[in-house]
Amino acid sequence: MQSRPLILVTNDDGITAPGIRTLIAVMQEIGEVCVVAPDRPQSGMGHAITVNDTLHLQRVSATESPILEYSCSGTPVDCVKMAVHEVLKRKPDLCVSGINHGSNSSINVIYSGTMSAAVEAGIEGIPAIGFSLQDFSWGANFEPTKSFVKKIVLEVLDKGLPQGTVLNVNFPKLTENEIKGFRICRQANAYWQEKFDKRTTPFGKEYYWLTGEFINPDKGEDTDEWALANGYISVVPVQFDMTAHHAIPVLNRWEL
Amino acid sequence: MQSRPLILVTNDDGITAPGIRTLIAVMQEIGEVCVVAPDRPQSGMGHAITVNDTLHLQRVSATESPILEYSCSGTPVDCVKMAVHEVLKRKPDLCVSGINHGSNSSINVIYSGTMSAAVEAGIEGIPAIGFSLQDFSWGANFEPTKSFVKKIVLEVLDKGLPQGTVLNVNFPKLTENEIKGFRICRQANAYWQEKFDKRTTPFGKEYYWLTGEFINPDKGEDTDEWALANGYISVVPVQFDMTAHHAIPVLNRWEL
Repeated sequence: MQSRPLILVTNDDGITAPGIRTLIAVMQEIGEVCVVAPDRPQSGMGHAITVNDTLHLQRVSATESPILEYSCSGTPVDCVKMAVHEVLKRKPDLCVSGINHGSNSSINVIYSGTMSAAVEAGIEGIPAIGFSLQDFSWGANFEPTKSFVKKIVLEVLDKGLPQGTVLNVNFPKLTENEIKGFRICRQANAYWQEKFDKRTTPFGKEYYWLTGEFINPDKGEDTDEWALANGYISVVPVQFDMTAHHAIPVLNRWEL
Repeated sequence: MQSRPLILVTNDDGITAPGIRTLIAVMQEIGEVCVVAPDRPQSGMGHAITVNDTLHLQRVSATESPILEYSCSGTPVDCVKMAVHEVLKRKPDLCVSGINHGSNSSINVIYSGTMSAAVEAGIEGIPAIGFSLQDFSWGANFEPTKSFVKKIVLEVLDKGLPQGTVLNVNFPKLTENEIKGFRICRQANAYWQEKFDKRTTPFGKEYYWLTGEFINPDKGEDTDEWALANGYISVVPVQFDMTAHHAIPVLNRWEL
């Protein structure tokens, strides 16, 4: 790559989140940065797109700012689509999403707006990485992640990514010295056991909050959950071909 | 299965859509039916869940109705979670989603609320099928799909599904006689070329509608797109392990 790479930055916690500010700061050391991120929190939006409503795009960086920043009224996936097709004059060399406040390991990849933004970039042929930190709090300390974020981004810019894949990178909540390094993993086979917190409105009507407990029966040492629990940064290659290829011969034996 | 199977029905077009009415009618021939579906259209919601807002559940069937029907204020995935954890007394034997007004073949599996509901059921260990018809119109004719829906549902109830998979079934817009039968497929490697239709509000502010063109460079005769274009019902086994297992050895050679 001759000139500085063009890097698109997005997230799902919204453009004002500390996590995206950290990611922007690191990306400015590496290339030209453009930010298109949701104008409000969009956690749990998965791969949602806005098909039945209008979308609004608002430039939020000052004219003299070195980076171009836009807030978008849509989902994280909408942000990537708008960035690529409305804001940028050429396809970015990389898309990074996050750093999410809270981990997106295991099955959470499928609910995560952070990861869906990265997946959308992947579908559009852009190398992409989603970053998440195992700390939900708004005041989470992202400092320990910085050198690792830079390292893996430079590696992806140098080597590219295998066809049809993006990376899901999760950081344990540790100091820089405590982090043991990167570990390539598979998604742990875990799930959420939902619990609905049932309440009553002041007007006597029932309503619910979705809560739940994360259940991980998968004890494999090659999983992202194992890596995080053992002080490693988990790196899962994620694909958007959802075909269960191994199931095709099984189904072909059915009498349909 | 000794007693009649318990079947959960949902969709993303909303509880009043003709597509779900067809699916309910066919399922009533097979088992005990419970419906939990969105109270309004939720197309394009992907695997979104409601984490920052409350959820409302409303019984809509009469007390003497043979089926239990609830509308839910959430996404298709929320509907499945609420059905399994709040409405039903036991885990359903099957979850069917749709019949969607419009196809969900190829990459659309990832944006589709219909398929995300089926995938959520799969994550919760329930055999699940998403059904879609290649006709977006509200007045689409679902009659030709009925005998095929019944056939594949009975097969799934009889044989089960391979571990960690659900089915994505798409119907071509043809008469029952014209349909050549089922074809087991992989997801075609296609994508959307977005176009944003930029407009101006009466108050002079710009806004956008997301539109786009479906681009399919994948000419494989083993794809769902090929099947639909050639008069077959496409059946794609879909998995929710998004790990690109083939990419793990590649990444392990990196110096991270």
